[in-house]
Amino acid sequence: MTQKNTLASPLFVGIDGGGSTCRARLTDVKGHVLGEGKARSANWRLGLEPVKAEIITATQAALQQAGLEKMPLSALHVGMGLAGWVLTKDRTTIQPIKDLFASCIVSNDAYIACLGVHQGQYGGIVIVGTGSCAQIIAPEESRTFGGWGFTLGDQASGAFLGHQTVRLTLLALDTMIPASDLTDAIAASFEWCPEHCLTWSLTAKPADYARFAPLVFQYAAQNDPHALALMTSATADLVAMIKVLQAYNTGRIALLGGLAKAYEPYLPSHLLASLQKPAGNALDGALLMARKQILV
Amino acid sequence: MTQKNTLASPLFVGIDGGGSTCRARLTDVKGHVLGEGKARSANWRLGLEPVKAEIITATQAALQQAGLEKMPLSALHVGMGLAGWVLTKDRTTIQPIKDLFASCIVSNDAYIACLGVHQGQYGGIVIVGTGSCAQIIAPEESRTFGGWGFTLGDQASGAFLGHQTVRLTLLALDTMIPASDLTDAIAASFEWCPEHCLTWSLTAKPADYARFAPLVFQYAAQNDPHALALMTSATADLVAMIKVLQAYNTGRIALLGGLAKAYEPYLPSHLLASLQKPAGNALDGALLMARKQILV
Repeated sequence: MTQKNTLASPLFVGIDGGGSTCRARLTDVKGHVLGEGKARSANWRLGLEPVKAEIITATQAALQQAGLEKMPLSALHVGMGLAGWVLTKDRTTIQPIKDLFASCIVSNDAYIACLGVHQGQYGGIVIVGTGSCAQIIAPEESRTFGGWGFTLGDQASGAFLGHQTVRLTLLALDTMIPASDLTDAIAASFEWCPEHCLTWSLTAKPADYARFAPLVFQYAAQNDPHALALMTSATADLVAMIKVLQAYNTGRIALLGGLAKAYEPYLPSHLLASLQKPAGNALDGALLMARKQILV
Repeated sequence: MTQKNTLASPLFVGIDGGGSTCRARLTDVKGHVLGEGKARSANWRLGLEPVKAEIITATQAALQQAGLEKMPLSALHVGMGLAGWVLTKDRTTIQPIKDLFASCIVSNDAYIACLGVHQGQYGGIVIVGTGSCAQIIAPEESRTFGGWGFTLGDQASGAFLGHQTVRLTLLALDTMIPASDLTDAIAASFEWCPEHCLTWSLTAKPADYARFAPLVFQYAAQNDPHALALMTSATADLVAMIKVLQAYNTGRIALLGGLAKAYEPYLPSHLLASLQKPAGNALDGALLMARKQILV
């Protein structure tokens, strides 16, 4: 017999559909965590069917952990944020996923992170990891800045730093710019062979470029001229992202993502001092959205 | 009856396998042009079979124009330069194309252009069009610099300028940098909509980016700050390509490609004055290679 979930005791699921992992968290009406589940990437750009499958997998895993494996998805109130969910048409093409659930509100992964980090209060976040983007939730508007991907955006991100570094390495191997310890290290990883570099690039994904980013920070700390120049320009891009959020005067801005800590020494100290520690995460934000639909 | 070609009266074909067109030129032993033919791109990265087909099409068209349509390909002495012919393994995988002809020597398109431009004498060229690369033919060595493609190379090229401009436009639309007349012009072409930009980028080829390059030159001439900054950095990249060739002291360097003229006002005048006018083209170079095989 299928268990019945009613508005009297609704169940909520928060889903964080990231670029590498899709995570789901199930809570009761009091916010107690009943179960959690995981699946592979639910980046919206992968297409409806794969994303739908990962969302179902992660949600069913959370139900199972809660001992509620017989609960139908159609009984759940869901809030989700998906990486790559940025186009206007996405709002309609996602309908088959929304139809799985009793209620479902969708946004992008930056929005739920911002919501969670500031526990539903107004504020902004800059995420700088493999990619980069900024999000504000303010009385005037909620808006994502950047997030246009590796080809056209992702300034200051790990993929951006790695990409620039590989470009510089090829210029150095071609003796068109001076080599440095940084370009030597990258060149060595390609056995000093531009052909290897080219072959690698034919299938390299943003995450593959981002793997070189730690080297940029490492050599910048040793005053490598190419690394320092890259850090100067990337930090300026990051500062521009923070400043666009400061203009909203929410008084709450947090810097998140795998490279947030590494950038701290490069940020102007007054800017760094103005940043807040995250009070929650993207799953918290997704659950806030889920609850807001039916409990206002 | 098939006509017979002998070493006593050899026929030569020069083939310029470019990124958009494959051209063939047939000459007799005295260098008289007997016929010319054209086909689609013979960029080596398209793969053996399509490139082979275009080379055959262009060559047969040249034979036909010469009234020699019954001449077998196996009677012809061929020199060819192919775009994208850069990897060591290309030297063996191209064998089925070489086997079509009585003799066939292959290089990349930059090499035959350099050979033709300087009529077989030592010298160097920088090609700056949709892509970019440099080539030297010198006593010490013959070498291509750059030519690593849109993702990792092509500095100062039209694709590079266009790409940087679209990136800047998105930053301006996101209010992270000031807009300018240049970014406004690009933004207008995308109906001021970052989403259109993103959708376009999903299928945009280097040539699509390069279409924006003329706008960069146009607005730089009107002192647009973003256009000027781009021109400063791209010109520095172009100068580095010229200087790496000057180090060989051949005394002959030419600047070629669709953007060569547009860059002239930005080059240091002593550098510009040192450049030579091309004395021939890539087909001339390919024919020089073809002849060299059997007439030393």
